[in-house]
Amino acid sequence: MEKAGRGRYFEDFAVGQVLRHAVPRTVSGGDVALYTALYGGRFGVQSSDAFARAIGYERSPVDDLLVFHIVFARTVGDISLNAVANLGYGECRFRAPVFVGDTLAASTEIIGLKENSNARTGIVYVRSSGVNQRGQVVLEFVRWVMVQKRDPSVPAPKTVIPDLAPGVAPELLGEGCPVLDIANYDTTLAGSPDRWGDYGVGERIDHFDATTIEEAEHQMATRLYQNTARVHFDALAQKSSRFGRRLVYGGHIISIARALSFNGLANAFHLAAINAGSHVAPCFAGDTITAWSEVLERAELAGRGDIAVLRLRTIAAKDRSCEKFPGRRGDKGYDDGVVLDLDYWVALPR
Amino acid sequence: MEKAGRGRYFEDFAVGQVLRHAVPRTVSGGDVALYTALYGGRFGVQSSDAFARAIGYERSPVDDLLVFHIVFARTVGDISLNAVANLGYGECRFRAPVFVGDTLAASTEIIGLKENSNARTGIVYVRSSGVNQRGQVVLEFVRWVMVQKRDPSVPAPKTVIPDLAPGVAPELLGEGCPVLDIANYDTTLAGSPDRWGDYGVGERIDHFDATTIEEAEHQMATRLYQNTARVHFDALAQKSSRFGRRLVYGGHIISIARALSFNGLANAFHLAAINAGSHVAPCFAGDTITAWSEVLERAELAGRGDIAVLRLRTIAAKDRSCEKFPGRRGDKGYDDGVVLDLDYWVALPR
Amino acid sequence: MEKAGRGRYFEDFAVGQVLRHAVPRTVSGGDVALYTALYGGRFGVQSSDAFARAIGYERSPVDDLLVFHIVFARTVGDISLNAVANLGYGECRFRAPVFVGDTLAASTEIIGLKENSNARTGIVYVRSSGVNQRGQVVLEFVRWVMVQKRDPSVPAPKTVIPDLAPGVAPELLGEGCPVLDIANYDTTLAGSPDRWGDYGVGERIDHFDATTIEEAEHQMATRLYQNTARVHFDALAQKSSRFGRRLVYGGHIISIARALSFNGLANAFHLAAINAGSHVAPCFAGDTITAWSEVLERAELAGRGDIAVLRLRTIAAKDRSCEKFPGRRGDKGYDDGVVLDLDYWVALPR
Repeated sequence: MEKAGRGRYFEDFAVGQVLRHAVPRTVSGGDVALYTALYGGRFGVQSSDAFARAIGYERSPVDDLLVFHIVFARTVGDISLNAVANLGYGECRFRAPVFVGDTLAASTEIIGLKENSNARTGIVYVRSSGVNQRGQVVLEFVRWVMVQKRDPSVPAPKTVIPDLAPGVAPELLGEGCPVLDIANYDTTLAGSPDRWGDYGVGERIDHFDATTIEEAEHQMATRLYQNTARVHFDALAQKSSRFGRRLVYGGHIISIARALSFNGLANAFHLAAINAGSHVAPCFAGDTITAWSEVLERAELAGRGDIAVLRLRTIAAKDRSCEKFPGRRGDKGYDDGVVLDLDYWVALPR
Repeated sequence: MEKAGRGRYFEDFAVGQVLRHAVPRTVSGGDVALYTALYGGRFGVQSSDAFARAIGYERSPVDDLLVFHIVFARTVGDISLNAVANLGYGECRFRAPVFVGDTLAASTEIIGLKENSNARTGIVYVRSSGVNQRGQVVLEFVRWVMVQKRDPSVPAPKTVIPDLAPGVAPELLGEGCPVLDIANYDTTLAGSPDRWGDYGVGERIDHFDATTIEEAEHQMATRLYQNTARVHFDALAQKSSRFGRRLVYGGHIISIARALSFNGLANAFHLAAINAGSHVAPCFAGDTITAWSEVLERAELAGRGDIAVLRLRTIAAKDRSCEKFPGRRGDKGYDDGVVLDLDYWVALPR
Repeated sequence: MEKAGRGRYFEDFAVGQVLRHAVPRTVSGGDVALYTALYGGRFGVQSSDAFARAIGYERSPVDDLLVFHIVFARTVGDISLNAVANLGYGECRFRAPVFVGDTLAASTEIIGLKENSNARTGIVYVRSSGVNQRGQVVLEFVRWVMVQKRDPSVPAPKTVIPDLAPGVAPELLGEGCPVLDIANYDTTLAGSPDRWGDYGVGERIDHFDATTIEEAEHQMATRLYQNTARVHFDALAQKSSRFGRRLVYGGHIISIARALSFNGLANAFHLAAINAGSHVAPCFAGDTITAWSEVLERAELAGRGDIAVLRLRTIAAKDRSCEKFPGRRGDKGYDDGVVLDLDYWVALPR
């Protein structure tokens, strides 16, 4: 029976450990089509080879979040099969575009450990990276997860909490997007006249659209990424969980929010970095997701006259409109219905 | 908040206006696979590159209705986000085959306007066309939709009702299908011995098969086309609509009916034109769709010894068999359960 | 009405009859992506072109069971539209790898007939084969199905029961897998250190993971294969069936079990043959599937130092864990919940 893995427990991790994950994955045009069918994304660069070629790409790059989900999924079997919760993300950078035909593999270094006072769980901090078939890093990110202990009597490891940047500095952005012939970027075809310069810090946008989650959709998405966390697929076992039903993969909500954000941010075609992200509440089939965004910061990129970046905070909520911009109420947590709080950088044409 | 569009209202349209739509879309083999998974189409020309090559195509063309849905979806954001109902289609011609790798873009001219007597809604007549990356028109069609007014007090525009042909004349058909080596068309492999000459005017065919609609299926289909009409995706908002639930995109029913029609029309591989179409009743997840067809007319195509066309009327119904050919009862409307009445031309080998 | 087929009945079959099936099907990268989204398969050879190339493939071959389902589906319209039950499989050999771009066609010979004593149904034994566009046999298998008689008064045909091998002899295996540079097979990337030599006869593996079936998923899978058996799609007609609801295509369960088996058999990348298989009980949407496997036999392949084969028996069950290895209780049938009993050969690196 030991040939079938049950995943690592808290006491199986050590700071400095590096794990090379199974299984490499070639990204196909079929993956891209499924991603469109699952989220309905419409960013021009990713939707049309002709649009992408006009501005200097050889063809449409693969959606950044599809790359994220594929790399993330590779880490699940080694890191988070026995996770209680995915607590947060940070220092996530998209460092090279990915195209159909590229093969992605992933590895992870354990960078921190902190046992919880109950001795039943602990927090594992990891830095993961995805590389293509040429060994080029396409994505790296840190995440921290609460993982069960197999045996509470095992002594706690030395606490190591990594020193994480509060966000990705603008100087580190731009690698994921080649220098573009931005004069050929057609904003009418892209769906909005609003370029980088048209957004102001503090501006809030209710993305207005909404999407209701179905079991078949989140399961197909999560399997497409080859994410194997059982909580998303096993209704029988979940019946006796605290939720009583299948849990939607948190990344599914991030992709829904990003697709909804097209309405208001149609030219924000490239996700350059994720500064911080947290899943405020779990989601289930039947939930209807809405989203709004606030512009936190604007930055130019050194030597780049083609694109510049906006730092956005996108909040997703369930079963309520985002007309009144639900969010964090200071120390009192979040407004009812908020499910996602994501702080990230997007690139737009100047 | 104005950056996120809510769509045009009746008073935002003017006859003669031309709208260039976002977002261009490259058609991939993944789109074709999803279309098969969603409808189960089996026409030999579209199913097999080898079959298509044997009769002179470079490879399988993309299913005509997939092209229709992709072009149609591009128009939704500018035309019908605030539509109450999609009233009808006409003058729809498939003018050039589309292949995997082609990029489709769309534009629309407003050709008619008529405010309703309630001053709350009006009918907008539009002619839309889809072009490929070489600027070649692949599809054009007229549709008319009832659209809400933002402000009932705005005066009505001058009524302009376009003069539409009752159907597409046979002389205009055939562009969408290259001249074929029809001697190499293998009817056994295609699934039926019945060629064009085997169908008689007045002949009725019950397609016998049936398919039950799931929420995940119609949502994935509609998002695949990048159709953004919120009524298909937002269960929460739809709760307070007159239907109480998500509405299935009408084109989804057309594609189901077309796939069902394979059983009885296996050699009708090319949809050459749609003369007229109306969605008689709305459809919802859980509905089981059946269909039957009648041959209305037969026509040869000038200079074409390879193919000829049948004018068909296909009726789709829900939650009942089509054994008794439900349809229109003169002036009294339709028999119970009828959801679609489609009048179109298909090409078959002679 | 005769143009729309209703399928053959028992009295329409004769031993020796050969049927060339409609419709050929080109396999695309989109089909492969959908197959991943539907089952979540993770075998390295099929998941990564780079992994496949490292060991000598030109690129990833298509999953063997996807090939099986596509070939099987072609036979349904001619063989089993009026089947009461799919009774069993045997002598199934995967004889050549299939790659994206290949076109599959199928034909079937009737090799046996036995009318049941009730004179209302009979058993039809068939040998089907799938060929690629070069005429190379990629797959062959025998199956036997119970088919309805149209007219019970038609006299019974002469009983012919084919002499079937109890399993596929190891000498017949290996054609479906080219000779590989097995030194380049990276077991870490593949997800398990366990090679052929690490499995012992009698060893049992609980695959631990589980997946809950959704209507949209099994329908999309079955339509992807172009399997047209109405019982899978028509909820309305199924309401009055003995089950009261749509029946899941048996092959869907085989693919779920195979994907679950990755956890414990990550290096068993090629399905070389199916010796015997039976669907012990029907499955429906909502069922949660689990699986376990036993090693029945080990064999080397003549002249092959790269791979060797294990004969496995995989049991799938529903709505129960496989921790206690549910199976056959001698003559008393199966333990509660067992739905599939599959005896097959897989190839692993030595």
